[in-house]
Amino acid sequence: GHYIICGYGRIGSTIACTLSERGLPVVIIENDPDALEQIKKDGHLWVEGDATRDEVLKQARVEVAKGVVCVLKSDADNVYITITARWLNPGLLIVARASDPRAETKMIQAGADRVISPYEIGAKRMALAILQPTVTEFLDLAVHSAKFDLTIEQIEIKKGSMIEDKSIKESGLRQKYGVTVLAVQDPRKQLILSPDPEFVLKVGYILVALGPIEGLNRLKSIAKASDKT
Amino acid sequence: GHYIICGYGRIGSTIACTLSERGLPVVIIENDPDALEQIKKDGHLWVEGDATRDEVLKQARVEVAKGVVCVLKSDADNVYITITARWLNPGLLIVARASDPRAETKMIQAGADRVISPYEIGAKRMALAILQPTVTEFLDLAVHSAKFDLTIEQIEIKKGSMIEDKSIKESGLRQKYGVTVLAVQDPRKQLILSPDPEFVLKVGYILVALGPIEGLNRLKSIAKASDKT
Ligand SMILES: [Ca+2]
Ligand SMILES: [Ca+2]
Repeated sequence: GHYIICGYGRIGSTIACTLSERGLPVVIIENDPDALEQIKKDGHLWVEGDATRDEVLKQARVEVAKGVVCVLKSDADNVYITITARWLNPGLLIVARASDPRAETKMIQAGADRVISPYEIGAKRMALAILQPTVTEFLDLAVHSAKFDLTIEQIEIKKGSMIEDKSIKESGLRQKYGVTVLAVQDPRKQLILSPDPEFVLKVGYILVALGPIEGLNRLKSIAKASDKT
Repeated sequence: GHYIICGYGRIGSTIACTLSERGLPVVIIENDPDALEQIKKDGHLWVEGDATRDEVLKQARVEVAKGVVCVLKSDADNVYITITARWLNPGLLIVARASDPRAETKMIQAGADRVISPYEIGAKRMALAILQPTVTEFLDLAVHSAKFDLTIEQIEIKKGSMIEDKSIKESGLRQKYGVTVLAVQDPRKQLILSPDPEFVLKVGYILVALGPIEGLNRLKSIAKASDKT
């Protein structure tokens, strides 16, 4: 599955580069000639056209896409794309930008999985930097910095994994991989924060894990179905 | 110590309300008549004038303030305020907003402790929502939501505290308070991520702790100097 990014402005271009760097296939929808020039320079795939039109979304193969990012300037356009994309592909992950925080509810109603308002998140981050500077620094390092050895990642427990049906303690996440489980999401999308060491890991659960990159990668391969055939 | 907020736009007003809600004293510097009208409605203290002028910052008592938030529209103005404020009060916490991410380095050079670019942080958050939706949800709940019972907070170990010179294991943070230590900052501002259970807590260390609000509050009172006189 690929990711469609509607709009190649400041936010859209940053997201496109981040996803590409991780090796994820990206297709941009854009109709501004200057932006199209930049897309070609940056080496992305693109569809020329207006992302609010069904046939343009279809041309970008929205039906088989994994996710859509709506970052056009107008909140109304982002709502419109969300409705169309959700209708064309019910299983799609849709992330939309709201310029006006009041548009957030409308976008969720339209079918967006997550709505981000840059001004709101910027304000929250600045308040956190004043109230809890050390927490802010921790988050910058662990979540947003690629340079740091330690990071937060999500890991899904697959069927046949060695740690299936074991408690966090029994699976030795801390001892073997240096990993701390911050939260677990169950298949009903319920988030259990800071689970007990006795908490039992089941198939389909998603761990939010803090640990060294190497330990997380090892844990990820363990969490997958065992290859012993 | 009070907090000075330079600029009462979308970001400035959100930060002012967040700090006020937590009971922190706030003074706004603003010269736009409409914004001043809104400040009065919202019930904040204010100084009318241009925050880039020394005498206006002095009128807001920058010399005895705890922090300054620079959220004027112009990056050049925010750099200028940062330089002046840092010179008038070397111990001040300065958080500045950069519209253009390239202004970030200049603001750090000018003396800002932390610079936030709403577009950049918005883009990072949207990429994270695509790459790791469960991590994004965890952060929203644990860091930014006041409704949720679990949260991340920073707690400083004060002299005379019961947990001074004890290891994380010995102090029973998990058993007694349900608290997980995500990171520790030492007095040289070095951040140790995911410390070992044997890690010894010393005076002046700041814990980045994840736990239930009640447990964190109890830990906070324990981390303070004991009152037994
Ligand atoms: Ca990282
Ligand atoms: Ca919270």
